[in-house]
Amino acid sequence: MLNKNDSSFTGNARSVSAIDWLPEGKLKLLDQRKLPTEEVYIELSTAADAAAAIKDMVVRGAPAIGITAAYGVVLSVLKSGPDSTDQVARDIEVLAASRPTAVNLFWALDRMKRVIQQHESNGSPVEALLQEALLQEAQLIHEQDIAANKKMGASAVALMRARQSTPIRVLTHCNTGALATGGYGTALGVVRRLQEENVLGHVYADETRPWLQGARLTAWELVQEGIPVTLNADVAAGHLMQAGKIDWVVVGADRITANGDTANKIGTYSLAVLAKHHGLKFMVVAPESTIDMQLRTGQDIPIEEREGDEIVAVKGQIIAPQGVHTFNPVFDVTPHDLIDAIVTEKGIIEYPNETKMRALFAKTCD
Amino acid sequence: MLNKNDSSFTGNARSVSAIDWLPEGKLKLLDQRKLPTEEVYIELSTAADAAAAIKDMVVRGAPAIGITAAYGVVLSVLKSGPDSTDQVARDIEVLAASRPTAVNLFWALDRMKRVIQQHESNGSPVEALLQEALLQEAQLIHEQDIAANKKMGASAVALMRARQSTPIRVLTHCNTGALATGGYGTALGVVRRLQEENVLGHVYADETRPWLQGARLTAWELVQEGIPVTLNADVAAGHLMQAGKIDWVVVGADRITANGDTANKIGTYSLAVLAKHHGLKFMVVAPESTIDMQLRTGQDIPIEEREGDEIVAVKGQIIAPQGVHTFNPVFDVTPHDLIDAIVTEKGIIEYPNETKMRALFAKTCD
Repeated sequence: MLNKNDSSFTGNARSVSAIDWLPEGKLKLLDQRKLPTEEVYIELSTAADAAAAIKDMVVRGAPAIGITAAYGVVLSVLKSGPDSTDQVARDIEVLAASRPTAVNLFWALDRMKRVIQQHESNGSPVEALLQEALLQEAQLIHEQDIAANKKMGASAVALMRARQSTPIRVLTHCNTGALATGGYGTALGVVRRLQEENVLGHVYADETRPWLQGARLTAWELVQEGIPVTLNADVAAGHLMQAGKIDWVVVGADRITANGDTANKIGTYSLAVLAKHHGLKFMVVAPESTIDMQLRTGQDIPIEEREGDEIVAVKGQIIAPQGVHTFNPVFDVTPHDLIDAIVTEKGIIEYPNETKMRALFAKTCD
Repeated sequence: MLNKNDSSFTGNARSVSAIDWLPEGKLKLLDQRKLPTEEVYIELSTAADAAAAIKDMVVRGAPAIGITAAYGVVLSVLKSGPDSTDQVARDIEVLAASRPTAVNLFWALDRMKRVIQQHESNGSPVEALLQEALLQEAQLIHEQDIAANKKMGASAVALMRARQSTPIRVLTHCNTGALATGGYGTALGVVRRLQEENVLGHVYADETRPWLQGARLTAWELVQEGIPVTLNADVAAGHLMQAGKIDWVVVGADRITANGDTANKIGTYSLAVLAKHHGLKFMVVAPESTIDMQLRTGQDIPIEEREGDEIVAVKGQIIAPQGVHTFNPVFDVTPHDLIDAIVTEKGIIEYPNETKMRALFAKTCD
């Protein structure tokens, strides 16, 4: 475990790398549970470690979970050695069971499974070749995600600039930045792009209870990069809109169904309702890997509920009495009719519906 | 300082007393900053102590602030001795400056000032008589508040039962119970009454960031009384409504203007928008002392902003990076057209507007 106990990188901006493959065949993750007060990296050697890291939220964010799972398959094959098909299959099951809502996890594992199947069907079960092919696929998933983020940032900002004058003021929720993706970010990639084009009016970050991704991660990332950010309690979002301080609500996604319904961090749905009430724009930014054309509507998406301890305590400090019941769903579903635009690397869908979704993502219906 | 470091009163229900006048001429307050992990009481001897207790949120909640300020004037006269008119006037100014939004504070101080003026104009500046009259007035304010709460609870539940079948499921925000009032509670008084009439379906409590009144105080009060309560992150409120788990949103108020616009804890406005979107009912429960007929609309209400440390740390644990800006308004304004009913001890106003408000509260326009 590397401990770099200094997160006050004032002055020069720097970018953050949350997922790194090490040449010695290990996966290095930034432990996001410890931010913003400690910057600790951990090194993983097994698929079980990778599954635990996803489950325990060492790493989180739909695209980052997918990338981590892909590297987890590489770890599985590296560790299992020759004739290990059954063990790798079991490891993939464990990785798939780590979290239920984000579809990127299953999408990435499917890509890795296809590589294995190709090697088997080609009659080329040479271990070294399979290992190399899997590592290449995982790295490709990783690189493609970064490229997709940058493309989405550019096209999202182009859409915004076509729709309104600059500067553009954004409210975002949860963390969708370099920490949640291969790098750059989805919704936070849009904020980065606005900053690069010098048209960012301001960015407000919801703190995002209960896990505080906005306070702990988004604010940290933006402070690292020198992008001014204002942190607010989630409950202040309506007041910010009422006060006329927001133009766009921009969020990521964990799963988008065939009709454009979108699962994302709990609280996203409320923001969409509030945006509609105030006549503001609501944008979802997510790579194609987040699209699940197998599910017809958001009602089909499994919504993860986590333990109540995330509500009853913060960093070990008790904030609720013994004996209280808790309800801790960590995602909610925003119906497509509250969404102004879904931005992917394949294109933008304004006012999404099933027809438009199928037109753009037909090939994922195979 | 009395320290009763055990808040796990399981088994027998008990009621809570947050404000008590002691026979020796001191004011005893439950230190609400330390709940739910410690039940600590402090005793105050001066008006400055009372003002500090309000400002620092030892005591909070609009009616409780008014009651505390009234007792603060008694402390001032007890301490200042004869011929102390100027000092008492200065103490009243200090008390009035302790917090800006809740009008009950100014209302209670006005009542105390009228007692002083009566004594002066009657030519009866006998110190002992004034002290006794002021104590009687403060205790009357305290008792009337409890009586008003009980009356509001009964009439609110009658309205609910006239509007829908039972059981009735409630979402509430912040703390509006015995801790926030003279006793019993406003919105939480309605929950108590629903329980007494055995028609409470369930009560969900928003945790209410940033100060966590819902988690720390409302959940604690209800656990003390043996009323089952489910605590949720504020951001889950929309999801709860979408899932069909809520019938009524019931909240208190810090100030209600002549048109029915209502200032209450930050996040209330978002709940009202969400309730409207889902076709749910939104009820404000507040004593007449919360009505400010001098202000025409909610835009005139001063909204307190508190320090960012409430967002950046929880119980001393840092949850946001150095260098982040914060925005911490602690109230917001819900326009009257989002409110189904304002319940006071003088009567209920359904679908409030200025005409209806003036009809019921004409005498407060003097």
